[in-house]
Amino acid sequence: MTDELADENVIYVGNKPPMSYVLAVVTEFKKDDAKDVVIKARGRAISRAVDTAEIVRNRFVTEAKVDKIEIGTESVTNDEGRTHNVSSIEIHLVIE
Amino acid sequence: MTDELADENVIYVGNKPPMSYVLAVVTEFKKDDAKDVVIKARGRAISRAVDTAEIVRNRFVTEAKVDKIEIGTESVTNDEGRTHNVSSIEIHLVIE
Repeated sequence: MTDELADENVIYVGNKPPMSYVLAVVTEFKKDDAKDVVIKARGRAISRAVDTAEIVRNRFVTEAKVDKIEIGTESVTNDEGRTHNVSSIEIHLVIE
Repeated sequence: MTDELADENVIYVGNKPPMSYVLAVVTEFKKDDAKDVVIKARGRAISRAVDTAEIVRNRFVTEAKVDKIEIGTESVTNDEGRTHNVSSIEIHLVIE
């Protein structure tokens, strides 16, 4: 379990400019010579997650490929206790 | 060639509310009993494309599955002749 979690190099994309996340992904690939990095986002940040993956593989880690992309729906409860659904994405980048 | 193009049921997601595109995808599935529909979007509409796919498969066409998702980068030239890159997504939904 611990090993499995340790293997996952995950970057969560939020509302900062895309280059912040690009830098985070590139750093993750350099660290311990990681072979895979997962980029995750929800809601409107999904577009930014795709931008991040595209900039990383076109400009910085050109040997990285998209291994798989998964989409889903998550329930989020806000401060007022109301629940709504948001879409999510996971982009798996790998170096072969 | 013509057959191949005719086989592709494509919905382009833009800036309308997600339910417009959900309706378009559902209609496409009903039409000629289509077994696959492709949802395409660029830039900020990418999040809405994911919402569309998720709403379709969770609420309207529950037998539909995500077959594959592809991301890419496209060059867009604006009215002033300037070129910039935008990310794109293609979500392939299938009924097996």
